[in-house]
Amino acid sequence: MTDSLLELRDALRRFAAERDWDQFHSPRNLAAALSVEAAELLEPFQWLTDEQSRDLSPEARAAVEQELADVLLYLVRLADKLDVDLASAARAKIARNAVKYPVEKARGSSRKYDEI
Amino acid sequence: MTDSLLELRDALRRFAAERDWDQFHSPRNLAAALSVEAAELLEPFQWLTDEQSRDLSPEARAAVEQELADVLLYLVRLADKLDVDLASAARAKIARNAVKYPVEKARGSSRKYDEI
Amino acid sequence: MTDSLLELRDALRRFAAERDWDQFHSPRNLAAALSVEAAELLEPFQWLTDEQSRDLSPEARAAVEQELADVLLYLVRLADKLDVDLASAARAKIARNAVKYPVEKARGSSRKYDEI
Amino acid sequence: MTDSLLELRDALRRFAAERDWDQFHSPRNLAAALSVEAAELLEPFQWLTDEQSRDLSPEARAAVEQELADVLLYLVRLADKLDVDLASAARAKIARNAVKYPVEKARGSSRKYDEI
Repeated sequence: MTDSLLELRDALRRFAAERDWDQFHSPRNLAAALSVEAAELLEPFQWLTDEQSRDLSPEARAAVEQELADVLLYLVRLADKLDVDLASAARAKIARNAVKYPVEKARGSSRKYDEI
Repeated sequence: MTDSLLELRDALRRFAAERDWDQFHSPRNLAAALSVEAAELLEPFQWLTDEQSRDLSPEARAAVEQELADVLLYLVRLADKLDVDLASAARAKIARNAVKYPVEKARGSSRKYDEI
Repeated sequence: MTDSLLELRDALRRFAAERDWDQFHSPRNLAAALSVEAAELLEPFQWLTDEQSRDLSPEARAAVEQELADVLLYLVRLADKLDVDLASAARAKIARNAVKYPVEKARGSSRKYDEI
Repeated sequence: MTDSLLELRDALRRFAAERDWDQFHSPRNLAAALSVEAAELLEPFQWLTDEQSRDLSPEARAAVEQELADVLLYLVRLADKLDVDLASAARAKIARNAVKYPVEKARGSSRKYDEI
């Protein structure tokens, strides 16, 4: 059983190789594309209240699901091009965040770590 | 052995629960935060040529690795709040892209599917 | 008395010429930089409620003011590089939006024009 | 003769008032919308080389012109809601940048001010 991040990385490698797309997949292009997809994911939420955003219609949710997928695909591809192990990087970041946001100080607050 | 996306999802659930942060994690807030992180990932690349972006210094690469992690963490958290299975959504999107970008038509081209 | 958009355009031309920065100011670089600045402008708002965002502290407001300026500067510079008259383009867009969002149909609704 | 930024501000005030849209125009919503528009402006450039981005087709340029306008409209609206004088803020930022990037040190370099 392969880890899904590795499986996606390999599927995207094949996808790009078959289409001769590696030439376009410079880190800077992929970072721009990722940023564009993240904004497309934000777009359906921009006029919603917090409550409305928690209760999407099935159609809105299906559209958002595709945008979530797009972000993940560019993220996996960019990490691969930079030779970054995404899962390890994310685990390390959670550990770092746990130090920056100690439970006692951060509880119930949305302030940044340098303001708590 | 747990899949890394599920493991991260569970770690983030615990992280938020311990800090009573679910109140802030509405989908719209998480989508905005994800978009901000994606831009922070783009920032170090904005003035680089494609070549330079393929050859980051170790310091630049380490900084980018943390931004990649931030994007993944918000993405996993947002998908969890929307009850979306990220890995399945991404696999489905690759299949859809394979139809939109047939190998023969897309090879060597960076045009959008509606222009090839 | 010069229009402020033209005055800023000319000031930015001089600023770039003095520093030999035109070489970096390709439209794609400027569009990336603008997008990064727009996200920096979103960042202080990401965890605020609508009410909180209407009532910033003087420090937060001063920081946001600088981000607003950054977005305008890159926008003016990008428009200049593309030979676009920003004020005319904006006036034309308001006229187009007035047709897409007729008063009677759009009143009190945040829906997109294709859903009203 | 009115300054174009003030003229646009007033036109947008009328546009929103006629449609009863002030209720949706919280600073945080407008900042999200601005960020989404900035990404739509980046989108057509994401796979282009610097050279290609300097030489858009008339159709591409016309589309980009509309996205430039969208960014300006949200920017003017957000500044108005925060009671910020955009032109003054931009002039002040240019003055600040002139100090951060002295001509002798910044010439021909795309490095950030803290690295020159």
